[in-house]
Amino acid sequence: MTVYLVGAGPGDPGLLTVRGAGLLGSADVVVHDRLIGRELLDLAPASASVIDVGKVPGQPIRQHDINRLLVEQGRTGRLVVRLKGGDPFVFGRGGEEAEALAAAGVRFEVVPGVTSAFAAPAAAGIPVTHRGVSASVTVVTGHAGTPQEPGGVPGAADWAALAVTGGTLVVLMGMAHRGAIAEALLAAGRSAGTPVAVVHWGTTDRQRVVRTSLAGLAAVDLPAPATIVIGPVAALDVHVRGTAPTGAP
Amino acid sequence: MTVYLVGAGPGDPGLLTVRGAGLLGSADVVVHDRLIGRELLDLAPASASVIDVGKVPGQPIRQHDINRLLVEQGRTGRLVVRLKGGDPFVFGRGGEEAEALAAAGVRFEVVPGVTSAFAAPAAAGIPVTHRGVSASVTVVTGHAGTPQEPGGVPGAADWAALAVTGGTLVVLMGMAHRGAIAEALLAAGRSAGTPVAVVHWGTTDRQRVVRTSLAGLAAVDLPAPATIVIGPVAALDVHVRGTAPTGAP
Repeated sequence: MTVYLVGAGPGDPGLLTVRGAGLLGSADVVVHDRLIGRELLDLAPASASVIDVGKVPGQPIRQHDINRLLVEQGRTGRLVVRLKGGDPFVFGRGGEEAEALAAAGVRFEVVPGVTSAFAAPAAAGIPVTHRGVSASVTVVTGHAGTPQEPGGVPGAADWAALAVTGGTLVVLMGMAHRGAIAEALLAAGRSAGTPVAVVHWGTTDRQRVVRTSLAGLAAVDLPAPATIVIGPVAALDVHVRGTAPTGAP
Repeated sequence: MTVYLVGAGPGDPGLLTVRGAGLLGSADVVVHDRLIGRELLDLAPASASVIDVGKVPGQPIRQHDINRLLVEQGRTGRLVVRLKGGDPFVFGRGGEEAEALAAAGVRFEVVPGVTSAFAAPAAAGIPVTHRGVSASVTVVTGHAGTPQEPGGVPGAADWAALAVTGGTLVVLMGMAHRGAIAEALLAAGRSAGTPVAVVHWGTTDRQRVVRTSLAGLAAVDLPAPATIVIGPVAALDVHVRGTAPTGAP
């Protein structure tokens, strides 16, 4: 048997892949993150073991323990689905899980998913690239903050360099450090009026969208999970009027 | 009725979303790009009208005509699926189609897809982000080339700025301009030894992977469609030995 590292997509259960749904439906064991919707877990057989390995913010991250669990489960010969929010290889630490399985000789397969980095903006009417507006899109995690701030860790993104690409910036897991991120981008020359959109629980029934500017980002009061879109595309709102409100709070 | 802008995913039909598959299965009209796999089109009812609007490389792009077709079809009241490779809002010009529909008052909905920018590397054993290796990933189109080269157009990406982000670069539609792109990145200071992977027809049966360096990119002889991955992650090959060869040609 095989351990499947499956991308659960951005939240809307309809955005799971056909292959991911099929694997979930025949899973013996499901190992899932904290923010996976109940509707997805209901796709697994009633007999499946469902293991929540969601890391609670503020608690020490024990990725090593998750890796060990996957190796152990993979060795039982049961069909193991490791269900990860979005795409397993986009800030999902799926690469580390894959390396641990490879090192242990446990067969695995990666099943990509729809990343919330692009789907959450889309659900708010924002194309992350747009002709004449944005010629590139960068996805970055805000989890590590900036190297300069208290709590910022080595390995954090180079915000000064990202400030000048001219393309769209999408920040995942950035709400805790949103003030420091805005400051770093402003210090590197991005204008205070740069459009910003914050999409909370994008693609789900709980979606809320706040539109602001880089100067206003620090004051946005939405809890995680949220996707932050920075750049001119964040001012777009492509909808047919009256049929699909963006749900600004 | 509604026009659905549906992301077809990277090529493997199993990577279509559940919602995309459901919409295709009840489509009256399917309007699709050139590189959509036959297996996906077979999901549409036999009675559906299937319209190929694939743009042939080198011929004048007539996005305007596609927009007009979608508006016309949307007004007939039939269920129209506009099937686009990857994700509609990631270099798919879906933003323009959405704007045209919105301007005409035709109701539409965007159904995100798995982008080949992340799934093609994953299929080659490459996580586009990886702890301690890459803290960001930038997706850019190489279609426009560089502003400096003959045939390069305004609106092309700022390769000099992208060269110094420190993160992974994924170039879509970049094979025609691969030499100029490598040159621009080298001129901006990226080292000649920077790992590069080129993934042709990623996630499909026809997948081929070439590993090289930035200095070697110009000499890679693979036809489009191909995804170019630039950065240290391109040297990774996360597989269990003997079970999932990368299929280097």
